[in-house]
Amino acid sequence: MTVRVGVIGVGTIGEDHLRRLTQVVAGAEVVAVTDVDLDRARAAAAKYDVATVHLTGQELISDPEVDAVAVCSWGPTHEEYVLASIAAGKPVFCEKPLAETPEACERMIEAEVSAGRRLVQVGFMRRYDRAYRALKDVVDAGSIGAPLIVHCVHRNPTVPGYFQSESLITDAAVHEFDILRWLLGEEITTTSVLVPKRNRHGGDLQDPVMLILEMDSGAIVDVEISMNIRYGYDIQGTVVGEDGTAALGDQDAVVVRLAGGTTSPVAADWRERFSRAYDVEFQEWIDAIAGSGVPAGPTTWDGYAAAVVANTALEALRTGTRTSVKLVEKPALYDQ
Amino acid sequence: MTVRVGVIGVGTIGEDHLRRLTQVVAGAEVVAVTDVDLDRARAAAAKYDVATVHLTGQELISDPEVDAVAVCSWGPTHEEYVLASIAAGKPVFCEKPLAETPEACERMIEAEVSAGRRLVQVGFMRRYDRAYRALKDVVDAGSIGAPLIVHCVHRNPTVPGYFQSESLITDAAVHEFDILRWLLGEEITTTSVLVPKRNRHGGDLQDPVMLILEMDSGAIVDVEISMNIRYGYDIQGTVVGEDGTAALGDQDAVVVRLAGGTTSPVAADWRERFSRAYDVEFQEWIDAIAGSGVPAGPTTWDGYAAAVVANTALEALRTGTRTSVKLVEKPALYDQ
Amino acid sequence: MTVRVGVIGVGTIGEDHLRRLTQVVAGAEVVAVTDVDLDRARAAAAKYDVATVHLTGQELISDPEVDAVAVCSWGPTHEEYVLASIAAGKPVFCEKPLAETPEACERMIEAEVSAGRRLVQVGFMRRYDRAYRALKDVVDAGSIGAPLIVHCVHRNPTVPGYFQSESLITDAAVHEFDILRWLLGEEITTTSVLVPKRNRHGGDLQDPVMLILEMDSGAIVDVEISMNIRYGYDIQGTVVGEDGTAALGDQDAVVVRLAGGTTSPVAADWRERFSRAYDVEFQEWIDAIAGSGVPAGPTTWDGYAAAVVANTALEALRTGTRTSVKLVEKPALYDQ
Amino acid sequence: MTVRVGVIGVGTIGEDHLRRLTQVVAGAEVVAVTDVDLDRARAAAAKYDVATVHLTGQELISDPEVDAVAVCSWGPTHEEYVLASIAAGKPVFCEKPLAETPEACERMIEAEVSAGRRLVQVGFMRRYDRAYRALKDVVDAGSIGAPLIVHCVHRNPTVPGYFQSESLITDAAVHEFDILRWLLGEEITTTSVLVPKRNRHGGDLQDPVMLILEMDSGAIVDVEISMNIRYGYDIQGTVVGEDGTAALGDQDAVVVRLAGGTTSPVAADWRERFSRAYDVEFQEWIDAIAGSGVPAGPTTWDGYAAAVVANTALEALRTGTRTSVKLVEKPALYDQ
Repeated sequence: MTVRVGVIGVGTIGEDHLRRLTQVVAGAEVVAVTDVDLDRARAAAAKYDVATVHLTGQELISDPEVDAVAVCSWGPTHEEYVLASIAAGKPVFCEKPLAETPEACERMIEAEVSAGRRLVQVGFMRRYDRAYRALKDVVDAGSIGAPLIVHCVHRNPTVPGYFQSESLITDAAVHEFDILRWLLGEEITTTSVLVPKRNRHGGDLQDPVMLILEMDSGAIVDVEISMNIRYGYDIQGTVVGEDGTAALGDQDAVVVRLAGGTTSPVAADWRERFSRAYDVEFQEWIDAIAGSGVPAGPTTWDGYAAAVVANTALEALRTGTRTSVKLVEKPALYDQ
Repeated sequence: MTVRVGVIGVGTIGEDHLRRLTQVVAGAEVVAVTDVDLDRARAAAAKYDVATVHLTGQELISDPEVDAVAVCSWGPTHEEYVLASIAAGKPVFCEKPLAETPEACERMIEAEVSAGRRLVQVGFMRRYDRAYRALKDVVDAGSIGAPLIVHCVHRNPTVPGYFQSESLITDAAVHEFDILRWLLGEEITTTSVLVPKRNRHGGDLQDPVMLILEMDSGAIVDVEISMNIRYGYDIQGTVVGEDGTAALGDQDAVVVRLAGGTTSPVAADWRERFSRAYDVEFQEWIDAIAGSGVPAGPTTWDGYAAAVVANTALEALRTGTRTSVKLVEKPALYDQ
Repeated sequence: MTVRVGVIGVGTIGEDHLRRLTQVVAGAEVVAVTDVDLDRARAAAAKYDVATVHLTGQELISDPEVDAVAVCSWGPTHEEYVLASIAAGKPVFCEKPLAETPEACERMIEAEVSAGRRLVQVGFMRRYDRAYRALKDVVDAGSIGAPLIVHCVHRNPTVPGYFQSESLITDAAVHEFDILRWLLGEEITTTSVLVPKRNRHGGDLQDPVMLILEMDSGAIVDVEISMNIRYGYDIQGTVVGEDGTAALGDQDAVVVRLAGGTTSPVAADWRERFSRAYDVEFQEWIDAIAGSGVPAGPTTWDGYAAAVVANTALEALRTGTRTSVKLVEKPALYDQ
Repeated sequence: MTVRVGVIGVGTIGEDHLRRLTQVVAGAEVVAVTDVDLDRARAAAAKYDVATVHLTGQELISDPEVDAVAVCSWGPTHEEYVLASIAAGKPVFCEKPLAETPEACERMIEAEVSAGRRLVQVGFMRRYDRAYRALKDVVDAGSIGAPLIVHCVHRNPTVPGYFQSESLITDAAVHEFDILRWLLGEEITTTSVLVPKRNRHGGDLQDPVMLILEMDSGAIVDVEISMNIRYGYDIQGTVVGEDGTAALGDQDAVVVRLAGGTTSPVAADWRERFSRAYDVEFQEWIDAIAGSGVPAGPTTWDGYAAAVVANTALEALRTGTRTSVKLVEKPALYDQ
């Protein structure tokens, strides 16, 4: 069975997912697209041979030719499209952030719980990365004992001029929030944000920052976010257990000895680092829809929890204090 | 456009490719299968929802519903199916070895040259491996200077009991023959085979062996083939240039510190190591057929050259001497 | 010129330094020893061919045959012996901690300042480690830009039963305090101590802990102290700059591929990891004494600063708050 | 007991050993030097405070103040000084090569056998290198099984203009000959030399070369010698056993992430790579003399065997054929 997908939003990430669903993933066909900029939607439809261009996301969601929806539009529109997809009983993939506010996420949770089945998957693509999966396998196997401390590093070579200090949390650290919850299988309970000396490349930006997170189990996490470090895009993660440690490997494809050094390339950006994870994410999403019909990936609850932690960290950044994460009660739907 | 593929042979590798074309690769549909064991063909068709089971490969090749053919049957049948596909004007992917003898390869070359266009792609999947591609990029960029020496290592944890000493060359070293020709962009001119002390795990098998190859440019290559080394499947390659060296990285996904050591896992077998290369190989094959119609991968000439080098190395093993590789003149069709 | 050394205290570390001064270091001769346990002193003197056994440290320091003093006795006795050595105008090497209290350190500073020249060297041996020196060279060269964040890791396989939670700071973290001051060339201004879930191997011990330090420049440091992690003794350090990072290498002497993994050994304990640093430390001390007469290593000020930071961290551990480090004004004697 | 050493020859390597014996090694005192250039001898004596300058090596050897002799003079003079030291019954350290010809080595063996005890140690310093010792420990422990293949790499950034093609064997490969005999505990039985395309940086020099060695046990070794590879001085070694492999580690002191890559420095030259091995070599030599009186390092037999293999490899280079190594019978004196 081929899953017929409709894509809402074909900007940078949306067009990339359109390409992915068309040219990389097996078992999917993109049958409809739309975009707030209809010319862009038409150009994308022409380029990737998509049959229909809809005037609105709502129209696309209602299209009986559309089996599943991929929401890649501007963040503030996510809620509307996800709720409409749930109402239509169609599986929906929603790029992160799931919504702008925890409240919006809560409304999605309510809708999904009312619908009585999971329809939403959030685009936390790191869970599909080969290195993170190998790391989780080691942690889950128990050989290093209970996790006590986790060290996370998120480095970016450069950011656009409009990037805000808050974005270090909402755009960068939010990935760590999700991956930590997944890796350790527990919630984050408090956040603190430390502000070191600034990187001269960042201008007025408070860059880097270091976050301290406490987990339900008592494990403590430090997260370095450096957004202007020039040398490359570099994501690191080390779980310190009672008997040993496990860390993401560098996955060096080539090792060069030249000019006085032994060197392996670092990824230039997130596309290079996680391109394959996006492919796997969409293939597994399509496979799940074509199979059981129930998405196996990050849930609405995961999107909600990340949003709450991000909000809490923003408050910690503003107040300079250790701030507690407050979540609503978790519906049983997300308990498997 | 969806490429409709017919698969001939659904044994271990054939069924894996059937799965790949059905569940992993975008833009392909398997519409027909056949196998010398028809029950096996029917079971595979049922499992992967393939419409038609043909009684013979010839019948499958003639099927107007089949746009392209994947030959995954027993080696001795390759020639017949490849020639039939060429005659039918259909793109054909042929698993290695292209044929049992250089003469059979020559007949395919003649047929393809007569047809006036490239239709055949040989299954040398290493060319699609991320690490080999990164290595070739460095070599081609010229920063390490002209290649002078290449060190290759091919290690396997264990082999089945029926494995012969000759198989170290025809099943293992043959991959190195192709990848060296591709990596350096030149032909192999002589082969020698050295026979070290035997591995006790190999019984009567002459394992390991070390091959010495000379290239057109004068570069010299040593190739270690160890087939019973227990610790894992490990493929290494280092190009030594005038100014530096470039080597395949280990691509460590995870690094564990435990029990007195820092450890990264080694692949258990070729499936784990090259599974992704197979995926890319087929995606690029399908893309080429759907696009220009001309396969961009290893050619009939490449299959022929590897076969001749393997034969030459077998002679070098028998005689204990340095033996010259003799190739027919290369048709312009393969000069792109 | 041979430097004639007197060693006070020949317990574990003292006897090891006696051996080092006798059998490893060039240009030194141990001419006198003493110990609170005179039998132990006599046995050590016999074993290493030392001419004289003194009844007290004071007697040893006054011995005209003694050019320089190595204080390796119990911590509470350090102040007395260091002050006596300063009074005698003799260079004195004092094992860490320099003293039990910041106040004792201040009295040594006053004595040394009054003497008008540097006589004291504190046993912070990490400054002599090849990897730390390579790290400092990179930081000082400026290629990674200004240091903004430092990640430190201090892991020990196991500790004796009498080890206290406070000891994680006074015995382990204190090394990081000194090395950070040296590496970055600035003082630590605040400390916080976070207490994660406990390691089951540590019983009642609060192990691990994570310290957060702020430096004069605004750089922020996190320090993981894990004392029961079983897998080995592992010291890590990474300086995150504006343009890149520099980290201690693992200095792998051998890489083994066996049983499914690529493994390099981790040091079993601090002796294995820093044995060579101790050798270099003493050789440079002897060379300085025989040369300019002025020790080039860690000063009384360094010993004082580490003691104050350790005290501050103990307070931070007790109170759970971010605590400021308060140092007296730095005498010009230590300003070179 | 202090060992009183006389040093013959204070050119580059001789002066470095004079410095080492004076300033690095414990338990040694250099009491006499000489050199074919007496002004150089006098300058060195002044610089390192050596009491006596002798007019000839023979005079130095006869000096009753001299307990042991270090021969660091020009190769052709080694035989004379080593024989005189044996005649005088004094331990003698002789820099490599032990002698210019196998015949000269045989004469030393005869003299030493007649003397009835081991007095000579040859300067194969790699045996004292931390990484080689770790490698040998793994091989000797047996966990990787019997060695079947060894891969050796010897790379140098550049060589002086007068360097000859033969020097790749006599100056570079000779180190591999000794270390292989030591590592595997067996003799080399045949040599072949392969001549790849030349490095443009080497002019007329046949650089690189690749040697193939066969060992007594049947193990096969390939040795790459590259003398103009620019990027640094790089010594590699991998032993391939029946169950796994063991290789020299890179001993990275620092890892830098900068400008798109993760880089560790490679040693600039042999001094940087093996400086510490020289220190250990001399310390152990002095310790052995002061202790049992019998040197524990490479013997006259080792010097002889390396000389014979080098001669055999030179013949293999000239003739282009596989050439057998012919050794005289090994005296029991060297059977420890």
